[in-house]
Amino acid sequence: MKAAFLKAPGDLYVDGGVPTPGCTNDTVLVNVKEIGVCGSDLHYYADGRIGDHIVTEPHILGHEAAGVIVEVGRNVRGLRRGDRVAIEPGVPCMSCALCREGRYNLCESVQFSGAPPYPGMFREYLTHDPRFLHVLPENVSFTQGALAEPLAVAHNAVLKAGVRPGDTVLVTGAGPIGFSCIEMARVAGAARIIVSEPLAFRRSVALTLGADVGVDPSSENLLERVREITGGRLCDCALEASGAESAIVDAIRCITKGGRTVFVGMGKASLPVPHAEILKKEAVIFGVYRYINDFRPVIDLLAGGRLKAESWVSHRFPLDAIVKAIVTAGDPNIDKLKVVVTT
Amino acid sequence: MKAAFLKAPGDLYVDGGVPTPGCTNDTVLVNVKEIGVCGSDLHYYADGRIGDHIVTEPHILGHEAAGVIVEVGRNVRGLRRGDRVAIEPGVPCMSCALCREGRYNLCESVQFSGAPPYPGMFREYLTHDPRFLHVLPENVSFTQGALAEPLAVAHNAVLKAGVRPGDTVLVTGAGPIGFSCIEMARVAGAARIIVSEPLAFRRSVALTLGADVGVDPSSENLLERVREITGGRLCDCALEASGAESAIVDAIRCITKGGRTVFVGMGKASLPVPHAEILKKEAVIFGVYRYINDFRPVIDLLAGGRLKAESWVSHRFPLDAIVKAIVTAGDPNIDKLKVVVTT
Amino acid sequence: MKAAFLKAPGDLYVDGGVPTPGCTNDTVLVNVKEIGVCGSDLHYYADGRIGDHIVTEPHILGHEAAGVIVEVGRNVRGLRRGDRVAIEPGVPCMSCALCREGRYNLCESVQFSGAPPYPGMFREYLTHDPRFLHVLPENVSFTQGALAEPLAVAHNAVLKAGVRPGDTVLVTGAGPIGFSCIEMARVAGAARIIVSEPLAFRRSVALTLGADVGVDPSSENLLERVREITGGRLCDCALEASGAESAIVDAIRCITKGGRTVFVGMGKASLPVPHAEILKKEAVIFGVYRYINDFRPVIDLLAGGRLKAESWVSHRFPLDAIVKAIVTAGDPNIDKLKVVVTT
Amino acid sequence: MKAAFLKAPGDLYVDGGVPTPGCTNDTVLVNVKEIGVCGSDLHYYADGRIGDHIVTEPHILGHEAAGVIVEVGRNVRGLRRGDRVAIEPGVPCMSCALCREGRYNLCESVQFSGAPPYPGMFREYLTHDPRFLHVLPENVSFTQGALAEPLAVAHNAVLKAGVRPGDTVLVTGAGPIGFSCIEMARVAGAARIIVSEPLAFRRSVALTLGADVGVDPSSENLLERVREITGGRLCDCALEASGAESAIVDAIRCITKGGRTVFVGMGKASLPVPHAEILKKEAVIFGVYRYINDFRPVIDLLAGGRLKAESWVSHRFPLDAIVKAIVTAGDPNIDKLKVVVTT
Repeated sequence: MKAAFLKAPGDLYVDGGVPTPGCTNDTVLVNVKEIGVCGSDLHYYADGRIGDHIVTEPHILGHEAAGVIVEVGRNVRGLRRGDRVAIEPGVPCMSCALCREGRYNLCESVQFSGAPPYPGMFREYLTHDPRFLHVLPENVSFTQGALAEPLAVAHNAVLKAGVRPGDTVLVTGAGPIGFSCIEMARVAGAARIIVSEPLAFRRSVALTLGADVGVDPSSENLLERVREITGGRLCDCALEASGAESAIVDAIRCITKGGRTVFVGMGKASLPVPHAEILKKEAVIFGVYRYINDFRPVIDLLAGGRLKAESWVSHRFPLDAIVKAIVTAGDPNIDKLKVVVTT
Repeated sequence: MKAAFLKAPGDLYVDGGVPTPGCTNDTVLVNVKEIGVCGSDLHYYADGRIGDHIVTEPHILGHEAAGVIVEVGRNVRGLRRGDRVAIEPGVPCMSCALCREGRYNLCESVQFSGAPPYPGMFREYLTHDPRFLHVLPENVSFTQGALAEPLAVAHNAVLKAGVRPGDTVLVTGAGPIGFSCIEMARVAGAARIIVSEPLAFRRSVALTLGADVGVDPSSENLLERVREITGGRLCDCALEASGAESAIVDAIRCITKGGRTVFVGMGKASLPVPHAEILKKEAVIFGVYRYINDFRPVIDLLAGGRLKAESWVSHRFPLDAIVKAIVTAGDPNIDKLKVVVTT
Repeated sequence: MKAAFLKAPGDLYVDGGVPTPGCTNDTVLVNVKEIGVCGSDLHYYADGRIGDHIVTEPHILGHEAAGVIVEVGRNVRGLRRGDRVAIEPGVPCMSCALCREGRYNLCESVQFSGAPPYPGMFREYLTHDPRFLHVLPENVSFTQGALAEPLAVAHNAVLKAGVRPGDTVLVTGAGPIGFSCIEMARVAGAARIIVSEPLAFRRSVALTLGADVGVDPSSENLLERVREITGGRLCDCALEASGAESAIVDAIRCITKGGRTVFVGMGKASLPVPHAEILKKEAVIFGVYRYINDFRPVIDLLAGGRLKAESWVSHRFPLDAIVKAIVTAGDPNIDKLKVVVTT
Repeated sequence: MKAAFLKAPGDLYVDGGVPTPGCTNDTVLVNVKEIGVCGSDLHYYADGRIGDHIVTEPHILGHEAAGVIVEVGRNVRGLRRGDRVAIEPGVPCMSCALCREGRYNLCESVQFSGAPPYPGMFREYLTHDPRFLHVLPENVSFTQGALAEPLAVAHNAVLKAGVRPGDTVLVTGAGPIGFSCIEMARVAGAARIIVSEPLAFRRSVALTLGADVGVDPSSENLLERVREITGGRLCDCALEASGAESAIVDAIRCITKGGRTVFVGMGKASLPVPHAEILKKEAVIFGVYRYINDFRPVIDLLAGGRLKAESWVSHRFPLDAIVKAIVTAGDPNIDKLKVVVTT
């Protein structure tokens, strides 16, 4: 089969002669159809590492994928050859205290596809744990199945934020995770969504996804704008999807007393927050890490036509053109949204 | 001004010579425009009482209303003559422990318009506490403003149920409160809504409001149908909007392990529940009583076009024809939804 | 080794020639030291079944036990020979959706020791899944370790009830589960605990465990007494530990508006509740089933000297006298609390 | 009557000829008995201001007090002459949206005794809103009644943290608020409390109040110590009671995955937090501001003998010696805990 390997920073190639992986009694073999390019793939491509995850030998990236089942291990129940599936990339140990507590996304022993040393999904075939494959109904496309991954992040974030019908929600940052958050906040009943994003192109897309107002924080005073829009009440919650220092402060400043801020975008190790204000308004701040039991509801929402998702894919490339896909996704001069690779 | 008085069971009349109420420094005078007929109005009309609330002298019914402000007391801030408003009928004491705890809907001293001895809203003018008047934006009609009351009940119910994006929700009973619950569950992100209702006419309306499947519990086994529809998983939560004995049992039987059931429809003093099953599935059951801080988000949702509301009004009558309005609303042989009275 | 087998209702015997079970690479062999007698053991002894769990061949009862590890499978980490442990009897699949959601106590495939067909703990040795063995610090006795099981039920109940420091708590039923609930409510900060129990002997024990007032519901009006004691406010929450019809109603009637009632004691399939009152007071009712991640905190509390536990053991018998242990535990003419069997 | 006035920074005097305030129909006159000295009193004494609260004319400080009722307005229900009471210093408007939402501590229009321009409690008599006077049972002393105020802060913090029976809790900072947090965490069922505090004297007091381990963060690596003590699991929650930059970071670093950190101690406007770690461990951070409905449960706990409170008063001074009281409380060379003034 074909697979794309990152050998070193900037050195990414497709190998057409990789042995197709086998399927054990307890696993499932999936023919991967579409794979989204994520910001973390760009980081690995540029630096060869993210934190402690270091590319030391040729490594397959990619962790947002959907495909079709071609073989099912003998002990596996509930899945069949031909089933179309979204692939949840992290397989936790399901034995440690965190897994038993229903926080498998925080499992220390998780095997997360695409994060070294665990090979990812830019390839034609992979075997996976059947508990982390989610069947796609007929009316959900492979593209939507691949986007279930960033949407699951947003689902986790929206549940943590406790978005209620009628809330006013701020989303800071309108990349694919910001788009997911806008879509999910709208689905959760937000009556008004304000998006803060410096790029005009991204703001305009945000408005098509359900955001009501777009603000450019580099040229406008976001807090003042939020005050105007909300009649002084500010936002019920903020979904911080950029990781940028100023956006993190905005996401606390712009919530109402008793409001909730969710940190979704990964930022620097240490960043300043308005501490006294957190106390005075009894803010609640939640960190979000990946997703947990979020794929099934996301797929149910896709099946119900409640999410646009596919509309924020701007570019598609075949696996052979993966270098172009990665370069496009990382090029600040190209107006792009989500980039998808097809096998 | 005109007002409708209930003198005794079945004895309802309009008096055209009632003095218009005055406006004190702390209150607001509202010209009532539209008033919904609620099931409790029918009970008072039929029996002259509900529980301890007894009609002992000519009494004005009605508690779902919207109108326009015609006079504002001198101490009142934030409201102006000409403002169009929804009227939240219950004015709590804001002094007792429950009010201080943010549970003003449970206040023992609440003055609830329309529940004897507090006069209601089937009249042309009323004075009200400004804290419980909610301004309607231009794009929200008086009808929608009047329906904010039953929608607020549903908002309270959906918050208690903790409906999450992607949930499957059962609504038992498709009267106006059931319609409100269907609309609000959809807004809160339900991926699939199943409605259980014996009347075909009501089931068909439910489907136009966002329900995905209608089940007739008098001819079908609801639990079996829910099992089929959900692939055996059952519902994440149930909103019980009928008060009927069998529906209450269904609303517990049809939820998944760890699911939530909300009792919205008022039933008999004592009713059986499947006790052992509540334990075995660790069900959570919430009672809902009226609404609390729910008008503002409901109006924001109406303003955002997120609720249909107006579409489930089937009949409109002028105040002079209030007897006909009440009789229509209570006639089992008429296909009707919400009945609205206009002044 | 010795083990006690139930062959048929009332036919319980000790067999001294049972082969000691082996220890696989993934399991641990425990020398059982003490085992509590639970009400469900009495039911099996009397009827040979509980619901769908039917004794069809000689079956070992018992599921509240502590012991010492004598052998550790090669793949097992974190446990050593000589470790003293409490044994959590239910081993869930850790693969199904409920296990992934952190609700392993609701797993459909749980293997629960002592519930047919899974053999229980009235024996000298058993092998167990290491994830469900909990190490006892030196200052926690085997008796306390065995009682960790009913205490874990109470821990689950108190978390669901959301007992807050300063709450007034009602416990209905003062058997071992009621005792556990009293102890745990006290530990959780209850400022006042009222216990409702018809037996004077049990009421007096309840007072030594932290209950402040004992009420005999067969001769006193519990609601009136609760009103007096609380100055009319009623209880913040109720832990229903009897399963009795009247206690279930009391546990709803005696909570304050917005209060929480937890059903801990298993009752009949169908039981009446005050439905209209649940709505009017916006009560919340939680079903509790066994425990989930509750053993570790219970053992930490035992180690910290926060629970009395051992004081509510009234009788101890050696394994050879298990029939006497069971008969004593079930004899209504004997003043007994928890009965413990030692190997 | 006598009252103490702050005229300017460092200029505090007692005036013996102040007119005793009158009691209206809706208020209650209290003879103040004991008043605690709070850190904010020291700030006003030193700087004449805290943020926007500026002493512009002679101002009475003090907001932690208990006394006895000497006159009751005619419209007041539920209080009588001779009742001993704790005085909740903040009187909110009970009209705004925040008050209606049950967040009266965040009311923009709160009249908070002792914060300019609202006169405080270092005086012999004051009138107060009866809703914010809390009757003390006979077995609760005036000193305990005065300490109800800092204990209410801790009660709010412990509820926000969601301390559960069996939790391991970190408290950073062992001043009076830290002491309150230690006491309240113990009452809420913490199995293990670790206190981080540089001063040996304060650490030793903390141990008498229920802390299990004291760590000096200036000479030890707190994270390493917490790891050792907890077997690597870290703390379930942290109550940050110092406002110090390094303690704020510690309070996030030392919690387990999914743990909760509560900011209780007011710090600088902007302070750094370990942002990436908040995401990776899905930490939840709560800001705490004063208290809300916390006095009643605190007094119930004091009445039940569940709090030590009085033991952390180290100095008492008569009102005439208030300057000495303030100076003692602020002197870093004196080993002091809470300082109390008596009238």
